[in-house]
Amino acid sequence: MSRLILLLSGPNLNLLGEREPEIYGTGTLDDHVALARRTAEAHGLELKHVQSNHEGALVDAIHAARSWAGAIVINAAALTHYGRSLQDALAMADVPIVELHISNPHSREEWRHLSVVAPVATGVIAGFGADGYRLAIEAVATLLNAG
Amino acid sequence: MSRLILLLSGPNLNLLGEREPEIYGTGTLDDHVALARRTAEAHGLELKHVQSNHEGALVDAIHAARSWAGAIVINAAALTHYGRSLQDALAMADVPIVELHISNPHSREEWRHLSVVAPVATGVIAGFGADGYRLAIEAVATLLNAG
Amino acid sequence: MSRLILLLSGPNLNLLGEREPEIYGTGTLDDHVALARRTAEAHGLELKHVQSNHEGALVDAIHAARSWAGAIVINAAALTHYGRSLQDALAMADVPIVELHISNPHSREEWRHLSVVAPVATGVIAGFGADGYRLAIEAVATLLNAG
Amino acid sequence: MSRLILLLSGPNLNLLGEREPEIYGTGTLDDHVALARRTAEAHGLELKHVQSNHEGALVDAIHAARSWAGAIVINAAALTHYGRSLQDALAMADVPIVELHISNPHSREEWRHLSVVAPVATGVIAGFGADGYRLAIEAVATLLNAG
Amino acid sequence: MSRLILLLSGPNLNLLGEREPEIYGTGTLDDHVALARRTAEAHGLELKHVQSNHEGALVDAIHAARSWAGAIVINAAALTHYGRSLQDALAMADVPIVELHISNPHSREEWRHLSVVAPVATGVIAGFGADGYRLAIEAVATLLNAG
Amino acid sequence: MSRLILLLSGPNLNLLGEREPEIYGTGTLDDHVALARRTAEAHGLELKHVQSNHEGALVDAIHAARSWAGAIVINAAALTHYGRSLQDALAMADVPIVELHISNPHSREEWRHLSVVAPVATGVIAGFGADGYRLAIEAVATLLNAG
Amino acid sequence: MSRLILLLSGPNLNLLGEREPEIYGTGTLDDHVALARRTAEAHGLELKHVQSNHEGALVDAIHAARSWAGAIVINAAALTHYGRSLQDALAMADVPIVELHISNPHSREEWRHLSVVAPVATGVIAGFGADGYRLAIEAVATLLNAG
Amino acid sequence: MSRLILLLSGPNLNLLGEREPEIYGTGTLDDHVALARRTAEAHGLELKHVQSNHEGALVDAIHAARSWAGAIVINAAALTHYGRSLQDALAMADVPIVELHISNPHSREEWRHLSVVAPVATGVIAGFGADGYRLAIEAVATLLNAG
Amino acid sequence: MSRLILLLSGPNLNLLGEREPEIYGTGTLDDHVALARRTAEAHGLELKHVQSNHEGALVDAIHAARSWAGAIVINAAALTHYGRSLQDALAMADVPIVELHISNPHSREEWRHLSVVAPVATGVIAGFGADGYRLAIEAVATLLNAG
Amino acid sequence: MSRLILLLSGPNLNLLGEREPEIYGTGTLDDHVALARRTAEAHGLELKHVQSNHEGALVDAIHAARSWAGAIVINAAALTHYGRSLQDALAMADVPIVELHISNPHSREEWRHLSVVAPVATGVIAGFGADGYRLAIEAVATLLNAG
Amino acid sequence: MSRLILLLSGPNLNLLGEREPEIYGTGTLDDHVALARRTAEAHGLELKHVQSNHEGALVDAIHAARSWAGAIVINAAALTHYGRSLQDALAMADVPIVELHISNPHSREEWRHLSVVAPVATGVIAGFGADGYRLAIEAVATLLNAG
Amino acid sequence: MSRLILLLSGPNLNLLGEREPEIYGTGTLDDHVALARRTAEAHGLELKHVQSNHEGALVDAIHAARSWAGAIVINAAALTHYGRSLQDALAMADVPIVELHISNPHSREEWRHLSVVAPVATGVIAGFGADGYRLAIEAVATLLNAG
Repeated sequence: MSRLILLLSGPNLNLLGEREPEIYGTGTLDDHVALARRTAEAHGLELKHVQSNHEGALVDAIHAARSWAGAIVINAAALTHYGRSLQDALAMADVPIVELHISNPHSREEWRHLSVVAPVATGVIAGFGADGYRLAIEAVATLLNAG
Repeated sequence: MSRLILLLSGPNLNLLGEREPEIYGTGTLDDHVALARRTAEAHGLELKHVQSNHEGALVDAIHAARSWAGAIVINAAALTHYGRSLQDALAMADVPIVELHISNPHSREEWRHLSVVAPVATGVIAGFGADGYRLAIEAVATLLNAG
Repeated sequence: MSRLILLLSGPNLNLLGEREPEIYGTGTLDDHVALARRTAEAHGLELKHVQSNHEGALVDAIHAARSWAGAIVINAAALTHYGRSLQDALAMADVPIVELHISNPHSREEWRHLSVVAPVATGVIAGFGADGYRLAIEAVATLLNAG
Repeated sequence: MSRLILLLSGPNLNLLGEREPEIYGTGTLDDHVALARRTAEAHGLELKHVQSNHEGALVDAIHAARSWAGAIVINAAALTHYGRSLQDALAMADVPIVELHISNPHSREEWRHLSVVAPVATGVIAGFGADGYRLAIEAVATLLNAG
Repeated sequence: MSRLILLLSGPNLNLLGEREPEIYGTGTLDDHVALARRTAEAHGLELKHVQSNHEGALVDAIHAARSWAGAIVINAAALTHYGRSLQDALAMADVPIVELHISNPHSREEWRHLSVVAPVATGVIAGFGADGYRLAIEAVATLLNAG
Repeated sequence: MSRLILLLSGPNLNLLGEREPEIYGTGTLDDHVALARRTAEAHGLELKHVQSNHEGALVDAIHAARSWAGAIVINAAALTHYGRSLQDALAMADVPIVELHISNPHSREEWRHLSVVAPVATGVIAGFGADGYRLAIEAVATLLNAG
Repeated sequence: MSRLILLLSGPNLNLLGEREPEIYGTGTLDDHVALARRTAEAHGLELKHVQSNHEGALVDAIHAARSWAGAIVINAAALTHYGRSLQDALAMADVPIVELHISNPHSREEWRHLSVVAPVATGVIAGFGADGYRLAIEAVATLLNAG
Repeated sequence: MSRLILLLSGPNLNLLGEREPEIYGTGTLDDHVALARRTAEAHGLELKHVQSNHEGALVDAIHAARSWAGAIVINAAALTHYGRSLQDALAMADVPIVELHISNPHSREEWRHLSVVAPVATGVIAGFGADGYRLAIEAVATLLNAG
Repeated sequence: MSRLILLLSGPNLNLLGEREPEIYGTGTLDDHVALARRTAEAHGLELKHVQSNHEGALVDAIHAARSWAGAIVINAAALTHYGRSLQDALAMADVPIVELHISNPHSREEWRHLSVVAPVATGVIAGFGADGYRLAIEAVATLLNAG
Repeated sequence: MSRLILLLSGPNLNLLGEREPEIYGTGTLDDHVALARRTAEAHGLELKHVQSNHEGALVDAIHAARSWAGAIVINAAALTHYGRSLQDALAMADVPIVELHISNPHSREEWRHLSVVAPVATGVIAGFGADGYRLAIEAVATLLNAG
Repeated sequence: MSRLILLLSGPNLNLLGEREPEIYGTGTLDDHVALARRTAEAHGLELKHVQSNHEGALVDAIHAARSWAGAIVINAAALTHYGRSLQDALAMADVPIVELHISNPHSREEWRHLSVVAPVATGVIAGFGADGYRLAIEAVATLLNAG
Repeated sequence: MSRLILLLSGPNLNLLGEREPEIYGTGTLDDHVALARRTAEAHGLELKHVQSNHEGALVDAIHAARSWAGAIVINAAALTHYGRSLQDALAMADVPIVELHISNPHSREEWRHLSVVAPVATGVIAGFGADGYRLAIEAVATLLNAG
């Protein structure tokens, strides 16, 4: 099983660190990816990161990863709640999928309570801020070792 | 009336043949397009095909086809269920529109039961697998001859 | 596999051609059955037609067809939306079932959006007027050849 | 505070003037932008206009405008009703936001009654046709002078 | 315009006078029909009455009446609330239709609040017990004289 | 039992004859009251009429009528759908109550389908235009004679 | 009190034993009726059985049984969920009514969760397969002895 | 398969015979248990009975019975409608489960219409008063003999 | 077309400036009316203002304005959300109607999201505080010049 | 803080003592006001009472009381459930507000379960009949002493 | 009638005074019980208090009180909203029941708006903080004196 | 800040390893607690574990932990979905709270989609089987180090 992980970041996450720090903290996306990468390397895993504000581009990235990725970690941001094309793309990926959120969507607006990613995810990690990136990779490492 | 047909394929359909064959069958998108093209040619019609994982690109394609297409056949995939921009674009197209699905969405998850394409479609063909591509073109041929 | 097709017509369809022509067109039910029969014969299939305004009679017809029919094409008219006994009868029929509508129910009143036939149908053809009868038989022919 | 305004036009608005004139009038998008620009200039404001059929492109445009825009006027078209990524992007913009519609969405189909832009908008102007572009800029001018 | 009226009585009304007299009174269906007939004759109208416990038979009766009836008065009983085939049949009848109820359905169980007859009825008379039969014919007389 | 009838007309009915004649006809409220009065007199009944655009005034009128009215006929207009104070006032009136509508509310907008008058009304007459005023008084006459 | 029981079987039950044996078992309707009859006779009761695919015929049967039946056992099949005429007919029967189901409707599709028979039934027995026929008669025997 | 049956009684059933006799009858819980026990013994079965007003205690009892019970009969009283822990405990029990109610919950308040026990029950017996205890054991006896 | 505008202010607006200034600002109703009047005069229009806490009085004012008003600007305050009599009165006014709100109702409590004024309004202006009064008159001026 | 209390009585309460005594008891409104006044005086408070069947008049009374009232006790009767203007007026009153009901609305019709007064009330007293008037004043006395 | 009152305190109330003082105040449960007891004694009543975090224990306490209590005052805390066993137990108690809340549940989260205690309560007192304990006992005293 | 963690296990979790291994895996609760403990110790944290099938007992445990716990990890099992008392207890705990699930509730029955724990949880970990216990402690360690 492949030791490469695709980390996907959805719309607006490129502005992390600037945006509503009381919700998302002050770390930037680069900080989070770096933390995920260090965690991955500690487990002998390699990380590739894609961020896009376009749902289609995220779908394309999932398609492209079919040839190389052993797992997907995805913070789909707002697309979590309506990105049905993304859901279908993930459903086609035959690898473990971790749904990741920096904040806890269930303690925010009601429209953030429905996740279209959840039905196709292996597991969910939400609400732990930056540390979620580390935990998600930890979870992937266990899943890949068990797989 | 133009004898050219725009065949539109929505997100993830580029992977047909690989994905959940118990639902979508083993034929590839190329197979389906070829069947549609042969059917069109038998009726003196010509087919242009566009596939994209981007809703915006499908909207662009519909806009571009305003100058040449006599009919649109669209398998909008997951966008069937939330692509309101696609719906508006189709509503502006002054030609017959056939909504096409390989499987029958009404016998799948509940979120696939709402179609935003249906209110602007002339007719619907769903559940006949690959043969739906032939039937859709057959339907278009009749509509164009009657138009 | 039997080459006989049961074509079922639900309540009020006996008046086709008289009723709301802007929705259903000017063809009579006899016209539509004749078109379906010609299409069937072109494919070496034979058609038997039953129309009734009684749900029970349609259920009886489906039961009777268990010994001879290779496929069922049904335009259940208003029973499409509440005929649960019809649904159960169709669920017991071990042959392909095509749900047929002359107009597109999804562009009409909201109560026509729920189909109780859909969950037990192989496929759906709707919105193509009289041509739907031809397309439905075409679809059956393919299904029987593949079956 | 910056005197530059970002005017954003969502999917299908590039076809204004062609499409359903009984709803949207006969003016083109260029006409509307020109009116908005003239109004802006009369108030010592400058207008930049972006139109796209891609939600991601509109999000990108909002991100890019963070360095220069003093206000955003947005006619999100169909994305008004499901573009949650757009909503999040606007929520991050620290400037006045005017939601603009040519027609009055509340007197149209029910799915147009929910606006995901509204919760993050300063104010709404809808139903005044082309004149809405002028009024929106007028409103912005007051907001910027008061800000 | 024909001076003949079709009076239709739905399921279980044949037992009027026996059933729940606190709701429906002690008059029998024959009593009610006789009252309606007397009222009709006083206006130079003639009444034909059909009662059935079969929705299909009521649909058949409406079809048959297309050649002779100038108006329809219908107490559809429980079919009022789910008889969509009956609704379609009435929608095809090009004559005034009066929806009649002995009791007031809106002051009974919630499932009796939805009437599928109402959207195709000219008017409604409910809650006046036996006198409703007289009032319905009175209403028809006015409609026919005005027609 | 008193032979006096209170006829109540709700908001905007003072403009009958001017307003949307395709829905409400061309007769004025005076015309309708005159028809009701003539019908009443033919049955030895007397009619008092109150119209108001104020829900409170209608409630006051019902209270005042407690000492003299033998029946109430009420066309509550828009208050039919939200006038809960009116409902409570009617519930306190110990006389027959006839709910009257010129058009059939069930074939209009959905918010007109709920009647708060219905649960406290003896019966309903709707959809017969001006003739409804005559029918309502006819119904009252029977109720008073039977009472 | 009469010792005769009416056993009613709704639509499609005539095919029991052929249909979806994983849900309904392999026994035929004749088998079930025989078991019910043996149980009845052991208690000095007599059983009459009526099966029909027509709701109207079941209503007719209930009406006819008013002169002789001491209890009704009904497996209304799909009519359980929408047969409001059947419900009204049962409501008029002044004898104990047992609602019987071979499978447990609450562990099947959601539309099978609403029973229109339940509000007028004395009791319910569901989910025990063929043995339900015996239990229902046992229950009736107790009710008749206690009545 | 074990011949021991666990009979579980939920909250407030200890007061049977005192409480709302028009709904629950005048028999005490001891009476009902005695009837169930006599029935069991007639079939060579043994009954153990546990009553508690604590959901946790009922869960504990189900856990404890895993080592010895061949079937469970449960009248969960109000917990029927919200006791999700009870549902999970029953789902883990690998024996037939009979859901028992003295009255028919579907003819009572709406909140009693949802049963969380039903999805994990083999069958349901409701509305037969005390006799339900006998019928439930009869049903169990058949299930165990068949098992 | 008349150059007179009716400006209507609904319940509680007489207290503007005192009430919840974080929502409604510190300007008084007199301030707002004065701004509207100055704007009107700049366009050669004249303004008449009516404020009332009584829905009936607002309906009366709309009726009275039928003889003289060329347009109506209405801030219906809480009546926006349930004043169906007001809605009917506005529907009868054959002039442009502008729905005006000081704050943006869609970013407040859910019950403020439904507007019964919207379906009968030409356009909506909301969320711009006092400046909304100026913008509304500007919009009216354009409408009257175009009319 | 002012020692004056405004006691407000909504529509139809002027008829207390006549109306549905099984719900509201036999005391008149005068009796209740007298009890409230005696209670107030015992605590050194003074009571002013306003009753109206007009929502607007109640709003006016609340406005007028802004200059003198130290607390408001309101039995809004039917307006409790839809009087949004009343709600807004109360929200502007900067004094303790006690919502009072003679009966318990939650054990009556469903439409009485929603209170629009509740969100702006300090506390609620319901179901204690006439004694509620005493308890409400007692509660106010404590609130004013603590304030 | 017994002069003893059962005061019941539901889950988490043992921590009153520590928990969210902005909602519940700073008084401890002991303080509140003492206030209730003093009030009771002033009226010649005696108070017994039970607090538990277990729904079953509260049910047990209500059962035990059947032999001695003349009234029940219950602050069911979170069980107010889902404790159906508690509701059934209270429904069996043949004494006045006062539902008590320190804060006003209707101005908090939506799930706190449904009370399962309300349908079986004589009256409700909510939102008056500690003083509610006094008021509830006052209400009980009146009820017992009147009973 | 305390280095002690309370690990809470809800109803039925004591049977882990026996129950539905395709959902919950084959590990026992002891295995999972041991994993959590080892992880805690690796971070210099100490773990106390409480399992109960009684909601009240879990509430008690949370209360008791107020004096010593620095964090709470809770797998509330079925109580996740209705345990409002548990929710209130957790809301009072002033320490980080991790909601833990072995499986992903969002890919199971709909009633498992609502979590009453989520609104009061710092973060959520779900779907990772036994490894979730390790990840939850990892998350706590980070939170405590950051706190």
